[in-house]
Parts: sequence; C-alpha cells; structure tokens
Amino acid sequence: MNYRMKVQYDGTRYQGWQRQSGSSATIQGKIEEVLTRQAGRSVRIDGAGRTDAGVHAIEQIANVHLPESFAVSPDELRTVLNEYLPEDIRILHMERAGERFHSRLHATGKQYRYHLMKWDSEQVFLRKYSWKMTEALDIQSMQEAAGHLLGEHDFKSFCTKASKKKTTVRQLTQIQIEETEHEVLLIFEGSGFLYNMVRILTGTLVEVGTGSRRPDEIPEILERKERKYAGETAPAKGLFLVKVYYD
Amino acid sequence: MNYRMKVQYDGTRYQGWQRQSGSSATIQGKIEEVLTRQAGRSVRIDGAGRTDAGVHAIEQIANVHLPESFAVSPDELRTVLNEYLPEDIRILHMERAGERFHSRLHATGKQYRYHLMKWDSEQVFLRKYSWKMTEALDIQSMQEAAGHLLGEHDFKSFCTKASKKKTTVRQLTQIQIEETEHEVLLIFEGSGFLYNMVRILTGTLVEVGTGSRRPDEIPEILERKERKYAGETAPAKGLFLVKVYYD
Repeated sequence: MNYRMKVQYDGTRYQGWQRQSGSSATIQGKIEEVLTRQAGRSVRIDGAGRTDAGVHAIEQIANVHLPESFAVSPDELRTVLNEYLPEDIRILHMERAGERFHSRLHATGKQYRYHLMKWDSEQVFLRKYSWKMTEALDIQSMQEAAGHLLGEHDFKSFCTKASKKKTTVRQLTQIQIEETEHEVLLIFEGSGFLYNMVRILTGTLVEVGTGSRRPDEIPEILERKERKYAGETAPAKGLFLVKVYYD
Repeated sequence: MNYRMKVQYDGTRYQGWQRQSGSSATIQGKIEEVLTRQAGRSVRIDGAGRTDAGVHAIEQIANVHLPESFAVSPDELRTVLNEYLPEDIRILHMERAGERFHSRLHATGKQYRYHLMKWDSEQVFLRKYSWKMTEALDIQSMQEAAGHLLGEHDFKSFCTKASKKKTTVRQLTQIQIEETEHEVLLIFEGSGFLYNMVRILTGTLVEVGTGSRRPDEIPEILERKERKYAGETAPAKGLFLVKVYYD
C-alpha cells in the first residue's frame, strides 16, 4: 500500500531532510522512526526534495510503502504520525497513492522561496526565517540579472560539489522578486534544482542587488561552469520549499 | 532629555514586560540594563502596556529620560540598544519626545490581537504564536457574544486579581473576528485593559465558539462581577500587543 503525504517542517533543528548514518536528526529519519515503530518492521520513505540542513518546508511531498498487514486509513496514519512526531514536523495531509507513485522521480517541478529581511527592518518574528541584509537592494538590477538565469542552462557554477557524471543542466521557469514592507522575497520555480542551487542563486542576486556585481555578469558566470565564479551561498534559514508539482 | 521608542519583542523567553526583583528576565529589565550601562547611572524606563509573561509585542511604546550629559542622537541610541539587546527584543524606532510625555499615562488606547489556530490546521510556523483549537469554532456566535462586550462595562469578571480600590470599568471600542485559511484572529481595541483581560475575553469567546456557552450569557457574566463566571484564561503565547494610541 503506497501512501502520499504532505509534510511541513521548521528545519532549524535538523540536519536536513535526508536520513544520515549515526545519530544526526533529519526529517526523513524522524518520520521513518515513527513509521518503523508503528509498522513493526523497518520502513523507508522517499521525499521529493532533499532540503539542506536548516532549510524549511511549507509543503514537502513524500511517499511510503506499508505492508498490507498494517491496514490503516490515511487519516489514522496521519493522526498517529502527528502524535509521535516532534511539533516542528507536521503531516498536513495523507492519502492513498497508486502503487507506482514515487514522490521524487515523478515530480515535474518545485517552487522555492527565499526571504531577505531589508537592511533597515528589525523584525523579531522574521529573524529565524530570513537573511538580514546590511544594505539596500536595487530590485531592478536583481530583476535584470534574474532574466539571464531563466530558461535552460548548465547551472554548474551554481552548484556545490557538482557530480562529474550527472548533468547539471536545469530549467528555471520563473524567478519572481517581490517587495513587501520588511522583506524582499525571491520565488524560484523550475524542473529541478542542484545541490545548494537556490542558495547560490540567491547569494549571487543579492550581490547584484547591492551593486557589487553587474546584472550582465550572469551569462559569463553560467558559461564558466565553476562554482567559484558565482556569489556566496545564502544562509539556509531563509529558504523554504514551498510546493512540489506533479503532472 | 526624553526619548520615545517603539519596541518589538518575542515574549516566549521572558517573564513579561515589567521589571521584577531578582534575576527573572523581563523586557523592561533587559532594556534598562543596556541603558544603565551606557549612561553610567541607573536608568528607568516606562512602557505603555505591561504585557504578561509569554505575551509578544509588535509595537510597544516606552519612554526614557536620559541625563543631558549623555548627549546622543535618537538614531545612535537605537543602534546602541539593538547592538546590545538580545535578538528577540528590537528597538524599531527612537525619537525625541516632549519632556512631559509619558508612554503609559498618555496612551489613549491599545490594540491587541489574539491568534487561534484552527483545529484542523497543523501549521508549524504558527505553533509558538497561536492557541491550537481542538474543535471547530462558530464564528457567528462569537461575533454575537462580542457585541455584548463592546462599549463601557465593568469588566471585573474578566480580570485576574482585581484591585478593590481601582475601577475595573473599561471601554472596549472594537472586537473584530477575522478568519484566515489557518487561523481565527481576535482583534481588541479599547481605552485600557485590566490584568489578563484580553486572555479571559478570548477564553470566554472560544467557549462560545465551541458551543459550551451561549452568546447571551455574556451580559450575565459582566453583571456577576466575579472572575469565576467568565471563561478560562487563554494561553499567553497567542497574544500580541499590536499598537498603542496617543492623541
């Protein structure tokens, strides 16, 4: 029996989504721990996005195959999980899925959102979930730079530890830059994202926003295909996995 | 020299606004500590609202008289305070005020907001700043009950440890009930509020919302003038002091 779940988490206390050997706390590890105890045998789950340590999720999607003998309704399973999971990890929704559904392999796109707190704002309730700027941002320049990133590119320069065997070509379908009273939000949508890619894109766009880079440097950075030419990796705490898309 | 400041804080870690003897951490105490160290003599500040332990503030107003010898611009004073204060207390704004300005005595009204998380929502990022309901709320009944609370009344039943000497008559000018996707927000405005008053009003309105009280019980509760007739005191973590009004 295959179950599909929507998971929300505050990543502050965790070493990211993906289970690790040893005792480090991960979201996947916490959910598997509860399921394994309930099912009475070792259970493995798959998540659509392997968020880094400290990164949050509004709606992560995961799926799990449970033995037929462990007959439980999706609602019961959700209730049990929420009862035993720590309160910074919540199952928002649970449903039956087709036996062949795989949350990661079948995902067609993802939306991430990065929160920048404006340099002259001092918002206490945003402090743990945004990157505080130290100077003003030129939104128009950032938008111009974002234009160069849209579409299909080899994002090797925007990836930490790129694999030599796997492709680093990805399709960025949207970069929206929204200004609110206290924040600048960067909303990224694409078919898939490389390791640290959203955080490096954000770090680079911020360098454009503060004027330490020009928007027209972006095509060159893409062309160089080396991590060192892009900007710094933005802190994890400002990043949220917002949505996973399926056909 | 009299300075007026806007203060925002996350009340989670504090024993409320008001300084206490001993070592308990309070917002007033933390700010006075930094000012005293900077001014080189004991400094006392006044705050408009004495929020309880665990209650938050979006915009608390306080004022402080500093010696002429400690000549510093409002912006410098704000910068120094934010440098030394813990990051869950921030000075949003600082300005010179007339010598006679007193943040509490001159306040003409306040706005408080209480956050209720809907029973079927499991929002991780609201968990520390809302009261999670265990059943659905009937908003229309709550609105009807709120109607009975508006205007000038003796709110003695809605006050913990009412003073025998001081009046418990207050004017409630607005109770707005707003429903969002995951929350029900209660927005209270009035000339002044008694100890725990907003939390007891909230607790009572929630009991109406769940059907364990009828809206038309409110006039009777007001009339009885005894704490035990009103509902339970809602948890501190869902309450925010939003605004202080002056003429």
